[in-house]
Formats: sequence, structure tokens, C-alpha cells
Amino acid sequence: MTEGGTVPGTSGTRRTPRGLETRSRILDSAAKLFYVRGVNATTLDDVRVASGTSKSQLYNHFEDKLALVHAVIDLQSEFVLAREEQHLRGVKTLTGLRRWRDALVQANSLQDGSYGCALGAMSIELSDNDEQSRQALNASIEAWRRMLIETLTRLRVLGVLAEHADPQRLGTGLLAALQGGYVLAQNAHSSEPMAVALDMALDHIASFARR
Amino acid sequence: MTEGGTVPGTSGTRRTPRGLETRSRILDSAAKLFYVRGVNATTLDDVRVASGTSKSQLYNHFEDKLALVHAVIDLQSEFVLAREEQHLRGVKTLTGLRRWRDALVQANSLQDGSYGCALGAMSIELSDNDEQSRQALNASIEAWRRMLIETLTRLRVLGVLAEHADPQRLGTGLLAALQGGYVLAQNAHSSEPMAVALDMALDHIASFARR
Repeated sequence: MTEGGTVPGTSGTRRTPRGLETRSRILDSAAKLFYVRGVNATTLDDVRVASGTSKSQLYNHFEDKLALVHAVIDLQSEFVLAREEQHLRGVKTLTGLRRWRDALVQANSLQDGSYGCALGAMSIELSDNDEQSRQALNASIEAWRRMLIETLTRLRVLGVLAEHADPQRLGTGLLAALQGGYVLAQNAHSSEPMAVALDMALDHIASFARR
Repeated sequence: MTEGGTVPGTSGTRRTPRGLETRSRILDSAAKLFYVRGVNATTLDDVRVASGTSKSQLYNHFEDKLALVHAVIDLQSEFVLAREEQHLRGVKTLTGLRRWRDALVQANSLQDGSYGCALGAMSIELSDNDEQSRQALNASIEAWRRMLIETLTRLRVLGVLAEHADPQRLGTGLLAALQGGYVLAQNAHSSEPMAVALDMALDHIASFARR
């Protein structure tokens, strides 16, 4: 599954509407289980049962667990990056940036801090064990970081942030605050530490506001 | 193993010097495998082979994998908290705090950013699947956070930080920056993003320096 998310055309059944529907049902079940339980704590059999598919259907779409893992990484990356793009593209003020923070903290608090970041959590489980997973997750996390850097660059161009603000460093620090916030929130089963972590990063960014 | 780290006295062989040595060898192998591969990617058989013990020796000391997991959490917590205590207790200046940061970044760079934080990584894998693990890890991460808060409180008492600096919030944000730094470093296989994340948090703390 190096093609990442595309439907391999080697088998007739995979291209039929019904085949695509089955593939998508397997993927959704796998994504959910990987997110809630973790990748390594989920077996292919768990995915088969949760998606209501047969062994042969499962193997028709994914030759092994790693193929499924790579497809889930693509799916979750698409989801997270689309969400972030939607929240960040219109940000033109520090208040707008705080609204982005509010949306993340609120989503996290709805699940009592559980499960962490889909991309961050998979990265921790997979980065040192499967280089292809690490690279795919790294590309997504890099894209996320670049979105934050672009947002901060826009704020500087608009004169919201001063010339000496460094979007590269501030963007990296902001993403780290978010990822660390996810870790502490999952551990505390409360979104409170994530809110505090993001607020500290945003306070620091606000200290570069043009007076 | 609810006693966490103590040697259960229910079996004669566990209390002998040889029994203790075997137990410690199993624990060390498990801690290493859990750290490098992850808890859920490691089987009891992997631990048995790595520690050179027999199945009966393993089960004599740990009744199941979860018992071993709880003992490893205790071991890693002890290790991390002792290291942090040693680095933080003498900190009386912002330079001292930057030396704490340097030690963490250097240790992380020696393994090219890999493996993450022993406590943070286990928390991500276990927090939503085993409440006893979550609580044990939460106690350790809380103790770590308190050490940072105490350090920042000391800096305020010494007049290094201004009265309006809030050690609670700054300590939480600093720990989140570190944890997020671990996540990004593991994903990038480079300690660079951890350095940037900690620097941003420390710059923010330094903005409360008494002039």
C-alpha cells in the first residue's frame, strides 16, 4: 500500500462499488480501533469482527496488518490536515488563533482527554518499528507544522506580530505544546493540562504582538 | 503486583538472592523492550528470550503481562523521577534551568530523537486500556510536574522570577513542551524540535525574570 489511500487495481472485486464500500468499512473500523486501543493492541481479527467482514474480504483489500496501518495513517492524516486547514486558513488575528485553540481543547474535553492525537499516538507506537510509517506520519506532522508557520507568517505580514517574531520557531513550539498537551490530557483524563499548555504557547506568541 | 515494585513474599524462591537477581533481569529486559518497541508490540516470550529465563521462572515472578507492565512502570518512574530530582533540586537561576534543558536534549540527541519519554510513551499506549497503569503513570507525571513547579517557586522566592509569575501554569506548560518535544523528536528522528520547544517555554519563563 505504498500508494497511500488509492485503490489498488489488481483485483476486480476491489474496484466495484461494493468492493470500495467494504474497503472503506474495514478502514473506518481499523482507524477507530487503532485510535481508541492503539495500533499494536489491535489484531486483524478485531478489525474483521468490528467491520463485519470475512477473512477473505479483509485480505482481498489489505495483504497484511502493515498495509492496513499505512492506509489508516493516510486516512487519519487526511482528516487531521483537512480539519487544521479549515481552522487555520482564515486566522488573521490573535483572537482567531485562540479560537483554533478553543476548538482543539473542546474536542479533547468531549472525550475527557482520552486517546490523544491520532497522528502523535500512532507516531509514538510506530516510529521506531516501521520506517515507512514514520516517514508517512512525519510528512503529515511536517505539513501540520507548516500550516502553523504559514498562519504565524500571515500574522506577521498583516502587522499583528512584530518583525522579529520567528514563525518557524514559534510554529514548532506551538505544535509541541499541543502534542504535549495531548499526552498530559490523556494521562490525566482531563483536557485541563492541554488548555494550560496551549495558553502558555499562545501567551508567548502574543508577547510578539505589535504595540 | 498492586504493591508496585515490592517483592511478593508468597513464594520461597522469589526471596532468595538468586530469585531477586532473576526478577531484576526480567524487569530490566522488559523495561528495555517496552521502551524501544513499545509495550503492546512486546510479548512475554520476547521478554523471556531477552532475559534468558524459562517460562516457569518468568511466571514465578510475574503472574501475567499486566503484572510485569505495572512493575516496569514502577521501575521507569523511579528512574525518571530520580534523574529529574537530581537535575532540578539545585536549580537557583535561569541558567540552571537551561542546564536541565541541555541534559534532556543531549540525552535525546544521543539516540537521534528515538523512543520518546519512557513515561509519556507508556501512558499513550496504556492510559485508555488499563486504569491501574494510567493511575500509576499519572502519579509519576504529577510528581514530575510538582518538581518543576517547586523549582519555579524557588526561583520566584529567590527573586529570579517576578511575583506575578505563576509556577503552577508555567510548570505545566514546561512539562507539556518537553512531552511534545519528545513526540516531535521521535517522529523526526532528531532532537531538534525538542530543543526548539523547550527553548520557547524557557524564553516564556524568562520573560517573567525580575528586571
